[in-house]
Amino acid sequence: MSGSIFGRRFTVTTWGESHGPSIGAVIDGCPAGIKLDTEMIQRDLDRRRPGRSRYASPRRETDQAQILSGVFQGHSTGTPIAILIPNQDPKSGDYDRLAAVFRPGHADYTYQQKYGIRDHRGGGRASGRETAARVAAGAVAKQLLAELGVAVSAYTYAIGEITIDPARFDPALIEANPLAMPDEEAAARAAEYLDQLAAEKDSAGGIVECIVTGMPAGVGEPVFEKLDAMLAKAVFSIGAVKAVEIGSGVQAAHMRGSEHNDWLSFAEDGSLAKQSNHAGGILGGISDGSPLKLRAYFKPTPSIGKVQQTVTEAKENVELAVTGRHDPVIVPRAVVVVEAMVALTLADYLLIGATSRIANLKRLFKP
Amino acid sequence: MSGSIFGRRFTVTTWGESHGPSIGAVIDGCPAGIKLDTEMIQRDLDRRRPGRSRYASPRRETDQAQILSGVFQGHSTGTPIAILIPNQDPKSGDYDRLAAVFRPGHADYTYQQKYGIRDHRGGGRASGRETAARVAAGAVAKQLLAELGVAVSAYTYAIGEITIDPARFDPALIEANPLAMPDEEAAARAAEYLDQLAAEKDSAGGIVECIVTGMPAGVGEPVFEKLDAMLAKAVFSIGAVKAVEIGSGVQAAHMRGSEHNDWLSFAEDGSLAKQSNHAGGILGGISDGSPLKLRAYFKPTPSIGKVQQTVTEAKENVELAVTGRHDPVIVPRAVVVVEAMVALTLADYLLIGATSRIANLKRLFKP
Amino acid sequence: MSGSIFGRRFTVTTWGESHGPSIGAVIDGCPAGIKLDTEMIQRDLDRRRPGRSRYASPRRETDQAQILSGVFQGHSTGTPIAILIPNQDPKSGDYDRLAAVFRPGHADYTYQQKYGIRDHRGGGRASGRETAARVAAGAVAKQLLAELGVAVSAYTYAIGEITIDPARFDPALIEANPLAMPDEEAAARAAEYLDQLAAEKDSAGGIVECIVTGMPAGVGEPVFEKLDAMLAKAVFSIGAVKAVEIGSGVQAAHMRGSEHNDWLSFAEDGSLAKQSNHAGGILGGISDGSPLKLRAYFKPTPSIGKVQQTVTEAKENVELAVTGRHDPVIVPRAVVVVEAMVALTLADYLLIGATSRIANLKRLFKP
Amino acid sequence: MSGSIFGRRFTVTTWGESHGPSIGAVIDGCPAGIKLDTEMIQRDLDRRRPGRSRYASPRRETDQAQILSGVFQGHSTGTPIAILIPNQDPKSGDYDRLAAVFRPGHADYTYQQKYGIRDHRGGGRASGRETAARVAAGAVAKQLLAELGVAVSAYTYAIGEITIDPARFDPALIEANPLAMPDEEAAARAAEYLDQLAAEKDSAGGIVECIVTGMPAGVGEPVFEKLDAMLAKAVFSIGAVKAVEIGSGVQAAHMRGSEHNDWLSFAEDGSLAKQSNHAGGILGGISDGSPLKLRAYFKPTPSIGKVQQTVTEAKENVELAVTGRHDPVIVPRAVVVVEAMVALTLADYLLIGATSRIANLKRLFKP
Repeated sequence: MSGSIFGRRFTVTTWGESHGPSIGAVIDGCPAGIKLDTEMIQRDLDRRRPGRSRYASPRRETDQAQILSGVFQGHSTGTPIAILIPNQDPKSGDYDRLAAVFRPGHADYTYQQKYGIRDHRGGGRASGRETAARVAAGAVAKQLLAELGVAVSAYTYAIGEITIDPARFDPALIEANPLAMPDEEAAARAAEYLDQLAAEKDSAGGIVECIVTGMPAGVGEPVFEKLDAMLAKAVFSIGAVKAVEIGSGVQAAHMRGSEHNDWLSFAEDGSLAKQSNHAGGILGGISDGSPLKLRAYFKPTPSIGKVQQTVTEAKENVELAVTGRHDPVIVPRAVVVVEAMVALTLADYLLIGATSRIANLKRLFKP
Repeated sequence: MSGSIFGRRFTVTTWGESHGPSIGAVIDGCPAGIKLDTEMIQRDLDRRRPGRSRYASPRRETDQAQILSGVFQGHSTGTPIAILIPNQDPKSGDYDRLAAVFRPGHADYTYQQKYGIRDHRGGGRASGRETAARVAAGAVAKQLLAELGVAVSAYTYAIGEITIDPARFDPALIEANPLAMPDEEAAARAAEYLDQLAAEKDSAGGIVECIVTGMPAGVGEPVFEKLDAMLAKAVFSIGAVKAVEIGSGVQAAHMRGSEHNDWLSFAEDGSLAKQSNHAGGILGGISDGSPLKLRAYFKPTPSIGKVQQTVTEAKENVELAVTGRHDPVIVPRAVVVVEAMVALTLADYLLIGATSRIANLKRLFKP
Repeated sequence: MSGSIFGRRFTVTTWGESHGPSIGAVIDGCPAGIKLDTEMIQRDLDRRRPGRSRYASPRRETDQAQILSGVFQGHSTGTPIAILIPNQDPKSGDYDRLAAVFRPGHADYTYQQKYGIRDHRGGGRASGRETAARVAAGAVAKQLLAELGVAVSAYTYAIGEITIDPARFDPALIEANPLAMPDEEAAARAAEYLDQLAAEKDSAGGIVECIVTGMPAGVGEPVFEKLDAMLAKAVFSIGAVKAVEIGSGVQAAHMRGSEHNDWLSFAEDGSLAKQSNHAGGILGGISDGSPLKLRAYFKPTPSIGKVQQTVTEAKENVELAVTGRHDPVIVPRAVVVVEAMVALTLADYLLIGATSRIANLKRLFKP
Repeated sequence: MSGSIFGRRFTVTTWGESHGPSIGAVIDGCPAGIKLDTEMIQRDLDRRRPGRSRYASPRRETDQAQILSGVFQGHSTGTPIAILIPNQDPKSGDYDRLAAVFRPGHADYTYQQKYGIRDHRGGGRASGRETAARVAAGAVAKQLLAELGVAVSAYTYAIGEITIDPARFDPALIEANPLAMPDEEAAARAAEYLDQLAAEKDSAGGIVECIVTGMPAGVGEPVFEKLDAMLAKAVFSIGAVKAVEIGSGVQAAHMRGSEHNDWLSFAEDGSLAKQSNHAGGILGGISDGSPLKLRAYFKPTPSIGKVQQTVTEAKENVELAVTGRHDPVIVPRAVVVVEAMVALTLADYLLIGATSRIANLKRLFKP
């Protein structure tokens, strides 16, 4: 494989280019017997869909997912689930003059170096459009997780320098708000900031935060496939991510052991409690049963209207102002992509971890 | 596999517990014909070895690596390279009273939840001792990289709040200095800080920075095995890492597109130059030929002498002061481990990426 | 993954059920720059297509393959190649009464045991229809092999007890003849035998032989991924295969060392020759540069019109005569499937083996 | 990896050359909590050990396995189990004159072609000695299987043309008899045949049969990782195997559907029975709950004292009589290696298959 396959047991292959006839995903290894809600898949795709606000690309896509296999009478059968999403509004003409230009901050140059050929239309395979396939597959993973009581929720934590205030956190805003920012005041300021950037033909970065609840303890495969390492890889595989942190993350480097260690204690009712969660729900690469917490740091959208310097395949130095349909900030649409990648990772490692003890195998095979 | 195997083509399996008779690594997939310098392997092991300064655990280990297979007349043969490192100074007695206690910030509780059994002595498999095997394997990977002109170098970027000043950067200090901190002034302040923490029976975190030079363009496997994603996973698999960033990393979230994009231009001599390297040498998950740059954020050592609250397997709440032999800061010894994980990742993806074009296969098979 | 992904570097995922809307394949890891002949893909699909003779199922499928991604301006781009084949003539009604019956010799019972649910229509995922997706992917692999001078050719070696006579071997008959049997006389006798079986509502098994020419020496990954082992797995993954042999195969068990060993000698022109090829082109799991030779033994088609005894999901003993559209012998249509699986394996191991020496990496990365 | 890693969940890496200081295996993914009987490992190693009869190489090895990790207080801990076996009696001098000769029927030439370098001493990595590591790992797999009620048993089915008679089958002879042939009369004739071959400086091939009892239904991962395909690959990875068959195997090609199909029926006590087992316990690539049955066909030992023609690295044609310590027939020592490879495959696919239904995951994670 060349990197378009994700996961070891709950495995997703995505395929498709921005301006091809369609894109898609194939899930191999989804356990049989899950009642699949196709509307839920569509709902997640809608959260990522372009054209819904002035802070997103105006490309018009309905992103109607078609399930072609692996589901019978509404349930997963254990065989591969193929999902196809037609591309309805490619405007390749927009890109013709970019065919021979290496846009700054884009993968044009590196794809050319690697493959010697690239589908330049709309960024080809490197387009964010590929993540629609991830979202569809992630929605299936979420339904598997839901059967086990696990829920994944992400939101915009920051746009540029504007971060949400936990004291004003309102989960209803995640889907209500075009910026997926669960703090009304911060969202308003971020909108203003983005309008200003748009006027300047510039773009913003930001931060997505993701919380997982209901996570059982004991999931993760040390020493190389620690749960945090696999989550980091999954989230880092989303274009534009430049950093990932778990729990205390970056701040951990500046703390003392006595501040950072999460103390354990049994409550009077016998339940185990942690007095803090700097670990972000993972110790030694294995989940500890408390909520997982991670953040992904996104760079600003590289396609900007401002004039930039760059080069062409013909080895000329040129000036370039990228026009076309672009997102002034990618973060709000990336929120559901982060959820998808986290859900895919957890589905995979729940399956892998299920048989870590011989007692588990005995329960399943000697009933 | 359950996570102790790393890599797809240049594959490393590590094994061993902190207080077992030995630990080791097996490399499968090392190309044949590399002249292997065993002294270089030893030199890297020495950089990680405990007992060399008052800022490291006093455990006495010579960490003499033995190569048991895969090398003939000084060259790799293409068959598995097995490396064994005896454990010489386990003091399991120190840990007996910890057998039933879940130390805060450690993996004791999560291993017990996952496996229902654990070798508690010295942290067992979760001990940092396991990373000696990574360092040995990483030293082989570095020799492969050297054949291709690629060099990996890491150092302590920060301890606690004390960071190096690029203006005072002195590479000679990386190995000369017990803190692996290439800025004499910062290192002196960090030493003072660590002495103070030691007096308070506390510990520090910090940051490791890693630079790779000589990297060819075109390496990395989008969309899920992007080079940055795989580096992040590799580095995140080191215990105590809580965040990883590539290039501009965390700062990218706060920048504008016009600031962040690296402009390209051809110099008069025809060479391609980037006017900045916020990308950290990777675009779209593929190396662009400029230096790779990443940082790993480490939490403070969880084993501290200060009294903490925690619980036992017998479901008691207890107070605990961890004595024994521990590092007041893990960062200086982790520097060479970061190098190893980066080198292992690059060796793997250079092999994987070598055949991305049919023209390459023709050159090799139709000479 | 749950087994629908094949290969490590040239990786194929197939999906789809016999009576779903479509089936398909996704190839991840095809090197960039291969000029892809879509008519050649179609030609291979036509060789497997049902409804072409009275010795094949009368199901009407045009098997028109659509390439949805990974190809740009007629060339592979290195990104996933998605191929979709619509199902045009499912007649699920034929199967309704079989929904609760476990047909002898079929996978009905085992799928039910494994998954607790199955798409019973037309055999669902276990149908031979799935192999159309393999053939399409195999045709891409063959084009990669052709670039390196490697050619794969299979044919019917035997039907029932009737085997071809090497002295009458006529390669033109492989495609000309509905039984894919390159010996006119044997083919005539086999046709007669099949007519007789049809009259008796019974079915036949047979043998497919496959020859690979132009194979470079040095391909295969001992000790577990020996080239013969991987070819055996690949061919054994075709439904109805009960045995696979390489070179002398079954006969080897009865030979003496002095008979079996292939002697080597240099001809006067300096070329290396083998005086026999009992090895079938592979020694120690690595190709030796001579032609590969293997045979696959197929069981008779399990769907027969004769009355059989079996059981139902409701735990009744019943009698069953399978009607519907079935092949009296699967071998002629399986010929191109064997070719496909061999081609997919060789493409994979050529990619994997390309970098077995550091000298190869230097040639590619330090030009 | 380059092929020295076997399995996806119960994963074994072997390393080591015939004349290196030691060989070994690392198991990653063994479930925790299995009480490991080290004497049973030794017993299996003893079955493969050379020097025990005149029908085996006289090399003296005690094959004392040392377990270096992954076991605590007699139980598997879920972490990698490293096993080391010292090489005690390498006689490299025997091989010096073979350093530059490519022995017929051996992997000398192909290793040289692949890697450009090889450890020629005793066959290096291609030596049968490597299988001792497989046997040790297989013995651990068998103990996992035993916990689930699954037992694997192989024996010599044929040497040359001499096959056992099922009517005289005596399981006690498998370990009692130096030829591992459970038919006293056949064993006596085979011994005579081997003596005659020895006198003629020649060697014999043969057949190993393997039976697995207690196998649960529902194990195997279609469509590419069918249980029969994975068993075939596993057994074909043993040097000298030229064919593998499951159930009716080679004979299936000559049978009719009405002969071959195994009829199902419920007995009066409600148990499901098959009236025959031509399938060999696998349908559609999934176990059906009846005994697994397979056969491996071994070529004659290629090292013979008879004069043969071959070539040297220096491109000369030479005559060669291979002296040194060799087995006149490899089959009796290969019996336990076949068992090991079958056991490793089943352990792997039992782990993989355990979570094929969401209901299984719910039982484990929501108790």
